[in-house]
Amino acid sequence: MNVVLLSGGSGKRLWPLSNDIRSKQFIKIFKGDNGEYESMVQRVYHQIKKADPEATVTIATSKTQVSAIHNQLGENVGISVEPCRRDTFPAIALATCYLVDVMKVDENESVVVCPVDPYVEDDYFAAVKKLSDQADKGTANLVLMGIEPTYPSEKYGYIMPESKDATAKVSSFKEKPTTEIAKGYIEQGALWNGGVFAYKLKYVLDKAHELIDFTDYDDLFSKYDTLTKISFDYAVVEKEDKIEVQRFAGQWKDLGTWNTLTEAMGENVVGKGVLNDECSNVHIVNEMDVPVLAMGLKDVVISASPDGILVSDKEQSSYIKPYVDKFEQQVMFAEKSWGDYKVMDVESGSMTIKVTLNAGHSMNYHSHNNRDEVWVVISGEGRTIVDGMEQKVKAGDVITMSAGCKHTVFADTELKLIEVQLGEAITAQDKVKYEL
Amino acid sequence: MNVVLLSGGSGKRLWPLSNDIRSKQFIKIFKGDNGEYESMVQRVYHQIKKADPEATVTIATSKTQVSAIHNQLGENVGISVEPCRRDTFPAIALATCYLVDVMKVDENESVVVCPVDPYVEDDYFAAVKKLSDQADKGTANLVLMGIEPTYPSEKYGYIMPESKDATAKVSSFKEKPTTEIAKGYIEQGALWNGGVFAYKLKYVLDKAHELIDFTDYDDLFSKYDTLTKISFDYAVVEKEDKIEVQRFAGQWKDLGTWNTLTEAMGENVVGKGVLNDECSNVHIVNEMDVPVLAMGLKDVVISASPDGILVSDKEQSSYIKPYVDKFEQQVMFAEKSWGDYKVMDVESGSMTIKVTLNAGHSMNYHSHNNRDEVWVVISGEGRTIVDGMEQKVKAGDVITMSAGCKHTVFADTELKLIEVQLGEAITAQDKVKYEL
Repeated sequence: MNVVLLSGGSGKRLWPLSNDIRSKQFIKIFKGDNGEYESMVQRVYHQIKKADPEATVTIATSKTQVSAIHNQLGENVGISVEPCRRDTFPAIALATCYLVDVMKVDENESVVVCPVDPYVEDDYFAAVKKLSDQADKGTANLVLMGIEPTYPSEKYGYIMPESKDATAKVSSFKEKPTTEIAKGYIEQGALWNGGVFAYKLKYVLDKAHELIDFTDYDDLFSKYDTLTKISFDYAVVEKEDKIEVQRFAGQWKDLGTWNTLTEAMGENVVGKGVLNDECSNVHIVNEMDVPVLAMGLKDVVISASPDGILVSDKEQSSYIKPYVDKFEQQVMFAEKSWGDYKVMDVESGSMTIKVTLNAGHSMNYHSHNNRDEVWVVISGEGRTIVDGMEQKVKAGDVITMSAGCKHTVFADTELKLIEVQLGEAITAQDKVKYEL
Repeated sequence: MNVVLLSGGSGKRLWPLSNDIRSKQFIKIFKGDNGEYESMVQRVYHQIKKADPEATVTIATSKTQVSAIHNQLGENVGISVEPCRRDTFPAIALATCYLVDVMKVDENESVVVCPVDPYVEDDYFAAVKKLSDQADKGTANLVLMGIEPTYPSEKYGYIMPESKDATAKVSSFKEKPTTEIAKGYIEQGALWNGGVFAYKLKYVLDKAHELIDFTDYDDLFSKYDTLTKISFDYAVVEKEDKIEVQRFAGQWKDLGTWNTLTEAMGENVVGKGVLNDECSNVHIVNEMDVPVLAMGLKDVVISASPDGILVSDKEQSSYIKPYVDKFEQQVMFAEKSWGDYKVMDVESGSMTIKVTLNAGHSMNYHSHNNRDEVWVVISGEGRTIVDGMEQKVKAGDVITMSAGCKHTVFADTELKLIEVQLGEAITAQDKVKYEL
């Protein structure tokens, strides 16, 4: 089957683990089958491959996530890069063109579009496979997954099927209701709309050509920033009559808030942390090197990262966003395709960073206009190129680079270095890239 | 008046702000009259000087605290350094000899001994002054402060006076009782024993010579490590018949736990932190550069430092010690007489530290046997001496020092540097000091 995973914006609702360049789907918080922690995107990717080893997985996302995706899933995953955010209809249209024009998938094949962040068991992807099979039959233009509600939630839209059959025609859609109204819907057999649907590629291609003037993938990509922001629901789903829904009764959790995220965690403590016996329903997710000690707490989530520390009642944690918006802080930690970096110290005229390069990787060859830099290699081996001069480096070596000086470093083994930036105007934007 | 402040051991009950080399009395947590934060020891010192500008203040402490005391109180405060910990009788005997032999105070003068860590208002030191005046009269050998109990506490010893007069003879002492028994004591007019007492210097000098074979301060100092560990209460107070007590009815808080410490804080947040409206009775003490966000919590203290993060129900916070004992962690932050240092990164073969030197100060001239070091100056100006060679340094300069190389740095202005230590066996003990 073909699967498109929609990997949405950064979001701050899981601060301090998510930030402007690091999204919740990349946080390694779930214990995988091999005992290693994996992220939402890794977990979902592995689950799809388990359900169908032949599955073609394409991630529709912005360019800011490309590094993290390759870092976590390797180089073979397909990525449909949105040049900018333009809501779900343009994103799904672009991903559909990508599959047909770039990946050369036959336009009569079906594709299933899923969000990247639900927390589900393997049976969910068996259901996704069935959705794809149902779309192949062509009895409807869209086949949706309808999730059996476990409570009358106000957080989801509802799908009203015409019958309680495993596959049924959709009678209507309902916006997020109040709890009372949700109860009524559920009595009538309504299902949650989890944003999962299958269609034949040609169907969405045709819709895209109806609404957008473009020739092929490259053309659509090049004019992407001119497209109108419009949701797939509004542009396609609500106007379509031939829609079916397939019931899914397995576990399904939307991991958008700390409250639901911690429910899905297998353990109470990820990272260094201790809960005393007087704690109940307390979760710690700690990315710092020092311990968190929690005593006498109930229904609390604690999360610490280089960006900050959250201590919240679990229910309250859904209201985090406006507070985090006010912090306006620098990103203190980021994963890149080549490794990661962590800001360790910020002064008015300097910034000190720890850089880890994965073996075989390098930075871009670049220079800065307004800052000098000093590298102190603390572990590993590699090669630096400074203004064209290549030099072997190992732990203990010091490299000084004045403003304007072109530089990069190649990691032959995993290589760690302390980078001290010096200057009065240190910004991420002050970077000129060069070909080597 | 003469005051001896007993500045006790480090203690972990205020972890993560106190650690093996940084004691609670040095944490800057109280807003002073000038709006700047001050520590317990600074607050108490200023209060004594306010009650009596002529007061001679001597701090009895271990050598590990000498740097921090000079750093916070300047160079003029008297310090009676205990070469090692030998309980309160040897400590008070040594401080008494220090006053007579080093500070040349007449042995017929009185001295008041106080703990350094009570949180009190100015009236407390007016009462301390009265205690000293009462001791001057010589109607008793020891004059104690008796604190009017505000509740039947199990945490304090009790003093039973013979009458309810402002000054009364002591009838007996009672060990820490149960709440029920404490109620009975209070009905009989009992007072809390806050560990504050006055005596004429000669009285304790004579007691010291009775119990210890020594000639003068220098002799006592040199044989201090051979002395028996014994408390002043046991060696002197319990055996003395001529004891008076003076009542004190003002505010008095023992700041030994987070619970009592936060009660004494004027504000709910010290450092970067935000409490949402659903928080009640929550305190944040944050020494990190990144924010703490607290949501929907009740009766909780949150403290973050480079050593770790505590999140505790306030009542529970008194049980912190055994948990912290298990952490066995490296000290990540310390204040020194010359400035401070903060550990920023620890790897198996390296450690990265940020060092701040106060203007006019320097490190010891020293070398390391088993590690190389690199300094990157990030702000300020000064001079390094490396193997005898002096060199001016400023922001951006890099100094590399191999193992065995002697080095120091003088700060002409406040000087900050990043120090990268490199080697397989990095320990604080690997340090050889030299004269310059």
